[in-house]
Amino acid sequence: MSGPLRRIAVLTSGGDAPGMNAAVRSVTRTALSGGITVVAVERGFEGLLEGRFRELAVGDVGGILDRGGTFLGTSRSERFETEIGIAEAVEVLHNKQVDGLVIVGGDGSFRGAEALHAAGMCVAGVPGTIDNDVAGTDTSIGFDTALNTICDAVGKVRDTASSHERTFVIEVMGRSCGILATYAGLACGADCILVPEVEWCIEDVWEQMLSGVRRGKKHSIIVLAEGAGHAFGVAQDLSELSGHNVRTVVLGHVQRGGAPSAFDRILASRMGAEAVHSLMAGRSGIAVGLRGNQVETYPLAEAYEGQHALRREIYDLASVMAQ
Amino acid sequence: MSGPLRRIAVLTSGGDAPGMNAAVRSVTRTALSGGITVVAVERGFEGLLEGRFRELAVGDVGGILDRGGTFLGTSRSERFETEIGIAEAVEVLHNKQVDGLVIVGGDGSFRGAEALHAAGMCVAGVPGTIDNDVAGTDTSIGFDTALNTICDAVGKVRDTASSHERTFVIEVMGRSCGILATYAGLACGADCILVPEVEWCIEDVWEQMLSGVRRGKKHSIIVLAEGAGHAFGVAQDLSELSGHNVRTVVLGHVQRGGAPSAFDRILASRMGAEAVHSLMAGRSGIAVGLRGNQVETYPLAEAYEGQHALRREIYDLASVMAQ
Amino acid sequence: MSGPLRRIAVLTSGGDAPGMNAAVRSVTRTALSGGITVVAVERGFEGLLEGRFRELAVGDVGGILDRGGTFLGTSRSERFETEIGIAEAVEVLHNKQVDGLVIVGGDGSFRGAEALHAAGMCVAGVPGTIDNDVAGTDTSIGFDTALNTICDAVGKVRDTASSHERTFVIEVMGRSCGILATYAGLACGADCILVPEVEWCIEDVWEQMLSGVRRGKKHSIIVLAEGAGHAFGVAQDLSELSGHNVRTVVLGHVQRGGAPSAFDRILASRMGAEAVHSLMAGRSGIAVGLRGNQVETYPLAEAYEGQHALRREIYDLASVMAQ
Amino acid sequence: MSGPLRRIAVLTSGGDAPGMNAAVRSVTRTALSGGITVVAVERGFEGLLEGRFRELAVGDVGGILDRGGTFLGTSRSERFETEIGIAEAVEVLHNKQVDGLVIVGGDGSFRGAEALHAAGMCVAGVPGTIDNDVAGTDTSIGFDTALNTICDAVGKVRDTASSHERTFVIEVMGRSCGILATYAGLACGADCILVPEVEWCIEDVWEQMLSGVRRGKKHSIIVLAEGAGHAFGVAQDLSELSGHNVRTVVLGHVQRGGAPSAFDRILASRMGAEAVHSLMAGRSGIAVGLRGNQVETYPLAEAYEGQHALRREIYDLASVMAQ
Repeated sequence: MSGPLRRIAVLTSGGDAPGMNAAVRSVTRTALSGGITVVAVERGFEGLLEGRFRELAVGDVGGILDRGGTFLGTSRSERFETEIGIAEAVEVLHNKQVDGLVIVGGDGSFRGAEALHAAGMCVAGVPGTIDNDVAGTDTSIGFDTALNTICDAVGKVRDTASSHERTFVIEVMGRSCGILATYAGLACGADCILVPEVEWCIEDVWEQMLSGVRRGKKHSIIVLAEGAGHAFGVAQDLSELSGHNVRTVVLGHVQRGGAPSAFDRILASRMGAEAVHSLMAGRSGIAVGLRGNQVETYPLAEAYEGQHALRREIYDLASVMAQ
Repeated sequence: MSGPLRRIAVLTSGGDAPGMNAAVRSVTRTALSGGITVVAVERGFEGLLEGRFRELAVGDVGGILDRGGTFLGTSRSERFETEIGIAEAVEVLHNKQVDGLVIVGGDGSFRGAEALHAAGMCVAGVPGTIDNDVAGTDTSIGFDTALNTICDAVGKVRDTASSHERTFVIEVMGRSCGILATYAGLACGADCILVPEVEWCIEDVWEQMLSGVRRGKKHSIIVLAEGAGHAFGVAQDLSELSGHNVRTVVLGHVQRGGAPSAFDRILASRMGAEAVHSLMAGRSGIAVGLRGNQVETYPLAEAYEGQHALRREIYDLASVMAQ
Repeated sequence: MSGPLRRIAVLTSGGDAPGMNAAVRSVTRTALSGGITVVAVERGFEGLLEGRFRELAVGDVGGILDRGGTFLGTSRSERFETEIGIAEAVEVLHNKQVDGLVIVGGDGSFRGAEALHAAGMCVAGVPGTIDNDVAGTDTSIGFDTALNTICDAVGKVRDTASSHERTFVIEVMGRSCGILATYAGLACGADCILVPEVEWCIEDVWEQMLSGVRRGKKHSIIVLAEGAGHAFGVAQDLSELSGHNVRTVVLGHVQRGGAPSAFDRILASRMGAEAVHSLMAGRSGIAVGLRGNQVETYPLAEAYEGQHALRREIYDLASVMAQ
Repeated sequence: MSGPLRRIAVLTSGGDAPGMNAAVRSVTRTALSGGITVVAVERGFEGLLEGRFRELAVGDVGGILDRGGTFLGTSRSERFETEIGIAEAVEVLHNKQVDGLVIVGGDGSFRGAEALHAAGMCVAGVPGTIDNDVAGTDTSIGFDTALNTICDAVGKVRDTASSHERTFVIEVMGRSCGILATYAGLACGADCILVPEVEWCIEDVWEQMLSGVRRGKKHSIIVLAEGAGHAFGVAQDLSELSGHNVRTVVLGHVQRGGAPSAFDRILASRMGAEAVHSLMAGRSGIAVGLRGNQVETYPLAEAYEGQHALRREIYDLASVMAQ
């Protein structure tokens, strides 16, 4: 941590998210334009321990801005959560003469990032996860793209729902967090949104559907966060209660891929640059967040100890819109 | 059947498919330009029996060319398969002074169409189903759009597959027919395609994956026709055999919706016009098919008695491409 | 202005933008859920003067959330800028027993809105313009969709640029404002961005292209704000200087349409609701803005007297990314 | 030409088209699976003369199936039309021990291909051009993708046309051929289509618009083939005649790029394979064409001497649809 930054490493970790490549590109070009060497670590933390490093030139991150996934590869590593793993990682980074590390990933990866920081490594975390469950930042890289993907898919399902006068329960990702489902439901005009943050029972769902039926609506779209139940179970309960045949769609991994949206490319470019600037300014153990329209840094611990709370007024707005 | 055509009805039946609206628009405008009145029947055969008819003007089919689903509504009706249902339908059509009927749907609907024809009604069938399983036509309306939708979805899943070096089994529609899966697999660059028409065993799948692994490929995409197995089962078998964690995606009803592709809009426009021209020429009991680049008519029975055979050379080509 | 709000009117004005329909839907459903009657004014201010009003029920704004343009119609009206026009408008609104008015449009429309407010009408403005040139709000409805549309188009042009090793000048909208061009250029990975806010000369453009050439790049994409020059002129100057054949694309009105992005649907839903809540709370003469992640209100005059300044750090970031 | 094929070269030539990469991939994998070595020629005919060859392995054409443009690069070469150029090319190919050559391109490239064949080289041509003006094949690679791109763009313009009650003239590509414009116009629901193959005058255009106006239509979309006039001129003439303000959009190079559609990927895969099979069977001087649903070969001369005629019934159908 003493002396100026000369060589940084960048890796992607945890579930992939659209815009991760844009973030790596930004880290690389920002660093190079500041006279800093950049090495890519392949396959996340696992690749770090295996020493899978390669230097990146300006052109090596050309043509990846609009690509989904992460060209560096990623992994969910248990060793990232052990003391031995962290110690080994620090040693590898020292051997590779790396002065700073940028980790693009979700809250699990940030926990590991903090451990590396505590072990003396200069580390910055950039939030990349479609779940948008990282605390301390309004939005994580990939969330906006996933919203658009879900909107597109729900729009397609609605064609069938409307043609056949059917009800569909559509299960979306988000782990234990209902932010993705809520924003997606609002953006899709869902008739009902079920999330872990808001208590619900099947009778309420049926009641809400009935209010649509009363004004002549003949199909319903229910968006279900994976943390709030399973599509099949909800559909079965609703079938029994309503006497209607209720269908299900589990969007699954389709939600995680695709070319990043303009928003995510811009966000990733800004966050990647801020991560490098922070390391250059001697800060470590920090996460980069979007707060309002500013990209700022804050302690890593805030990101994974807290929880990104669902804004209740957004959920309530969706209910009013669905009337 | 004597006398010139003065009034035709149009309905959509069975599973919805992108381009059905374009077909209804074409039927309507072709008929109107020939001085024939057009009435829409809502909700397919069920709506026919309930007498849900309304006259269509040129402008009533404006703005629907690019819409998925069917704005007329559709249904799968069991009464369409009974003698009583057919007799009732003919009576309703006579009461409404309908001289001719165009049915847009799949092979099940064509069976009903033939029964109506046998009962003395002038009927033409237009094939609309993403499964492309109607015999006698190279392509049904909706097939091309579904292929594009599947390609887009598989591309998104591949981003994750590639980032995480994973194998995915992706289940696509098609009922007992593997044409959709085969063409989709070819268009997506699937590593392996499993269809009901071609015998397969899990060992072959693993062998094919291994050939990719040997040349450095780290992820695999297996496209599975719903008629050839269930994604979860295939994934489990493959997991056990390979020792790898294999994921699944069931695309489900996402495949049936969305704005029709240019191809489907053109095909639907051509087929809808041909159906009307055939009725005007006094032909009945016919299906409209794309044969080569010509839109032609053929007996309805050919459409549902035969089977749209998978072209083996397309399947084999996909295997060569996947090497 | 005394007494509770009982009946509001909503209109769209100026250039159309994706998400305007979502805003009208939100205004309608928020008002109705608050027991307030809603009337739609067709064709913007012109329609207002002609008394083209119709009441909206909950279902009348169904199915429009994902539609581009504005189903109410819009117009650019010169009478909106005259005292007589304003006086007539107020009279019409009184005759129609309208207590409050929501105007979705750009800064020109906000000027008219302010005049209506000064004449005693309760008015709220919701910013809808792809140019994102309304002051006081981080983002206007339609901007995000337009960015995605431009990215998609530039991506397509890049395929040809790269295949043929060519340079393209791509002109984007924005009137006198370079925000759209800057964000689009950043999101697209443009090699050079030309906007009215930042001085430039053709020699700099050539210099920037050369830096790409030096590291092996064989094609260039220059994004030009319409306020900073004409594509053809820039291409000609660059051709002469560089000796290369430089091509142009003027994206034009393609940028203004299309299904709104998830971001714009959510923003429009939030802003529409806030406009109604503000009128219900007795506020008038206010604009609704996105500030950070909060939707807030501020005086209309701020919106059209000020100027939405291009954030220089975003422009500079784009330059670093383009190195 | 005696002896079995051992080593083939593949190049793309002329304007790029979506699906060219899929064709190169198919040529490569088909050849390799037949035990034949494949070399790629970069930058079309120019690259051939410069000896820019590199061998392709199975993995080298991985990940390009869904990419627009051509990763080999392309060029329009005048030397391809000279005797000296052809002689030099044959010498280079002999020196590189190439027994067969596959050229993916348009009719200009096929002329050069024929010259190479006449000079003793084994050559097969695969039609790749969005203009679909190659004679002897129903469809060329890229045409279907371009249709979808145009439909999407016209749909966006229609949002504005409809919101503002405006008329737009939209100019599309096609060189001297109106096939692209006709099919696009049919697929987009254009009110009027202007192509070089069908005589037209501005009065007819205005008459056709009026028929829409009479039934309440308030906006018009005119699709203009570049070979039939210039958008600006047509708009000006129509403005004068109608008294309305008529806007223009020139789609330009946006039409040539983008991920190939499923149709184009499948077509390219089939055509590429057929080209290799034909060379392996000892045929030379042939073009590959889609005829009905069969991929067949025919003499190269047919492809460039004839003209791909616009099917008049498709044009007429579009007129009926536009009523």
